[in-house]
Amino acid sequence: MGFQSAGLTAAAAAHLFNREAKVAVVERRTYATYHPCGLPFAIGGEVRDIHQLVEFAPKISGVNLLLGTEAKFIDTKAKTLEVQDLKTLKKSKITYDKLILATGSLALKSPIPGVDLENVFTIQTIKDGEDILVALPRAKKVVVIGAGPIGVEVAWALVRRGLEVTLVEMQPSVLPGMLDPDMSDVVVDSLTKSGIKTICSRKVREIRGEGSVDSVVIDGENIPADIVIMAVGVKPDVELAARAGLRLGPTNAIAVDEHLRTSDPDIFAAGDCAEARCLITNRPVLSQLATTAIRMGKVAGINAAGGDEKFEGVLNTVVTSTCGLEIASTGLTANAAKSSAIDIVATRVRTMSKPHYFPGAEPIFVKLVASGEERKVIGGQIIGDGAAERANLLALAIKQGMTVDELSRIEYCYTPPVSDSIEPIVIAAEALLRRM
Amino acid sequence: MGFQSAGLTAAAAAHLFNREAKVAVVERRTYATYHPCGLPFAIGGEVRDIHQLVEFAPKISGVNLLLGTEAKFIDTKAKTLEVQDLKTLKKSKITYDKLILATGSLALKSPIPGVDLENVFTIQTIKDGEDILVALPRAKKVVVIGAGPIGVEVAWALVRRGLEVTLVEMQPSVLPGMLDPDMSDVVVDSLTKSGIKTICSRKVREIRGEGSVDSVVIDGENIPADIVIMAVGVKPDVELAARAGLRLGPTNAIAVDEHLRTSDPDIFAAGDCAEARCLITNRPVLSQLATTAIRMGKVAGINAAGGDEKFEGVLNTVVTSTCGLEIASTGLTANAAKSSAIDIVATRVRTMSKPHYFPGAEPIFVKLVASGEERKVIGGQIIGDGAAERANLLALAIKQGMTVDELSRIEYCYTPPVSDSIEPIVIAAEALLRRM
Repeated sequence: MGFQSAGLTAAAAAHLFNREAKVAVVERRTYATYHPCGLPFAIGGEVRDIHQLVEFAPKISGVNLLLGTEAKFIDTKAKTLEVQDLKTLKKSKITYDKLILATGSLALKSPIPGVDLENVFTIQTIKDGEDILVALPRAKKVVVIGAGPIGVEVAWALVRRGLEVTLVEMQPSVLPGMLDPDMSDVVVDSLTKSGIKTICSRKVREIRGEGSVDSVVIDGENIPADIVIMAVGVKPDVELAARAGLRLGPTNAIAVDEHLRTSDPDIFAAGDCAEARCLITNRPVLSQLATTAIRMGKVAGINAAGGDEKFEGVLNTVVTSTCGLEIASTGLTANAAKSSAIDIVATRVRTMSKPHYFPGAEPIFVKLVASGEERKVIGGQIIGDGAAERANLLALAIKQGMTVDELSRIEYCYTPPVSDSIEPIVIAAEALLRRM
Repeated sequence: MGFQSAGLTAAAAAHLFNREAKVAVVERRTYATYHPCGLPFAIGGEVRDIHQLVEFAPKISGVNLLLGTEAKFIDTKAKTLEVQDLKTLKKSKITYDKLILATGSLALKSPIPGVDLENVFTIQTIKDGEDILVALPRAKKVVVIGAGPIGVEVAWALVRRGLEVTLVEMQPSVLPGMLDPDMSDVVVDSLTKSGIKTICSRKVREIRGEGSVDSVVIDGENIPADIVIMAVGVKPDVELAARAGLRLGPTNAIAVDEHLRTSDPDIFAAGDCAEARCLITNRPVLSQLATTAIRMGKVAGINAAGGDEKFEGVLNTVVTSTCGLEIASTGLTANAAKSSAIDIVATRVRTMSKPHYFPGAEPIFVKLVASGEERKVIGGQIIGDGAAERANLLALAIKQGMTVDELSRIEYCYTPPVSDSIEPIVIAAEALLRRM
């Protein structure tokens, strides 16, 4: 498939599962979907034209794609969806047997004075990206608010375009959702070496300017800025669901069971708008990753078409790329585990990507987190070559309930141009065993 | 640790497990160990000085390293090892409570006329590498016999040094132990594009020359050659074991149980000299990988020092790198499964390493093999970026007994500069499910 959104994936999966099913997708955009994760790289210039991120109207066999059409209201009793053609403004009703909500999320704006000034941008939609690209040529100084994956990616993109970049994060370290401070220190080093001024543990109090932004006030400092980019996350778009009376969960996303069924048995939800469950704590969490959306979409689509798939939960396996570093994470950080009152042991190792005698060897950092009681792996963080695939392997190990002992015995392969003779994950697992 | 041989790993593991144990390593070389997998890259020139592959005398805490000392005879009744100092020729006896054999393997030479001519080389020892490097400047044409991992690596190394290279493989395709023909075709394409003449399904009948090689005769063809490199594999060095009356297995390696104990309960064996067990067929196999040697060494060392570790077996997870391709494999190929009379389903997919809109996207090929009956994954082959780490993940999935259905639901991560939004392994698993 490859539709990179919960909605289109669900539609394709529904049709694939049940060729008799009549499947329609209602989409308010005039194009089917786009790749939000590509936006920082369109701003950085690797993606030459931002419109390459748009998928206009992919042919999905058996699926009726209604573009430029907004879903306005779900009548759960009559089982109809009221829609409006955004060009003609004509309203009509679509009846459904099963409905899937894949309404996504909306970029957050911090509730501070000045957020609505000109040249203060969020970075979630194609329009956001276009607006930033238009403003860039006249800008010299940028403040990026929020050092999550998108924040660090866009900060690096802007530095490469020659701008003076300040990255502000209110948590004590960058990528706080992915990394513990002993790992994020490595990232801060690279950000700093790349010329990005990184400020942690401080809050933005105000954005100042007349009409257009000219500075950002953080605790005790006024930072000049021609552009401000808010990368402080997204919130589930639950308007349609809430109006239909569907139950929301504690995270304010749509509550779903493991079949991704909402409080209405004929309505499913998938992607950023739906709540996920953490595989370790078993608590509701927001995942808000494209990969989770695709995985949920598949399950919701199959189940809406009469199947019986389960979506067991997430470890929020995530990768980002900034300043030439590949950074990935899965499961719980030590910090997150402590917040959940889980007794843990953790260790960080620094090793090399290739044998010492081979040119181009680069550092690899691996941090492992295990539950002190059961000796099970519950989290992994990796910085360096192959971080993404290593996080995927650790996600599998965690999902399978593997212990640190078992992880230290995994089979792996080696050839000098690619890897060293002891897999970094094994080195980390052995180091962790010595602490247990 | 990181000693990259069964012997040194075993010694270090024994000491780490039992600080009271007196551990000695007997090594006939005048240096402790070396990295045979680095030889093709010393010949190619990436490794600037072949002596960088030598580890002279690594400090291993608590281990007495006897270099230049040959083990001559094991008296299993008296529990003594007769050794000879290769400089003074003085013989002496070492008593042991537990002994670990890590005698490694010897390069094979095909039993054909002319193998002992000058400029016919094997490629296993530092001396082999030195001899090849001395012969290279006067050579123009090379024939490499055997297209296993070392064969394809050395062929590429020699082409980069400007030689005319012919690669001969008697099996119908290259890398026959790792890949099925639908995957090795991709490698043959790259070899050919890189200027390596690749000849499969043909046997070398004779090496001709007066004193020094001048041609290689294969079925129906005479290929001029200034140098011949035999990369036809290695055989376990079991001389010492056989002389001590230890049982050999059907592969002619030293038979061991899952604790790596030989037929003598006080003697263990690990690495290339020892037999391994295939995790899928449960049959004895030769593994002969550095990674297996390290994993076996750890188990043998701990058990010899009083521990109770198990070495469950191998999937022979392996990676090689040639012509800019990363090629990895784990478990059974479709061909190997058929030879073992296992009913299989298999499929190959071609996808891309990154999203289509991102520069530098390269093809990735993934082949999955599953047992038709249980729907379990039993083999994987990958060509492309991240092949090694993907093979490691598949090795873990196979070890855990995962079905193709489960593999199609794994969690993974994505960011455009690193990967696409659907993991190639998932794409392959979904394609395989459609065939089941």
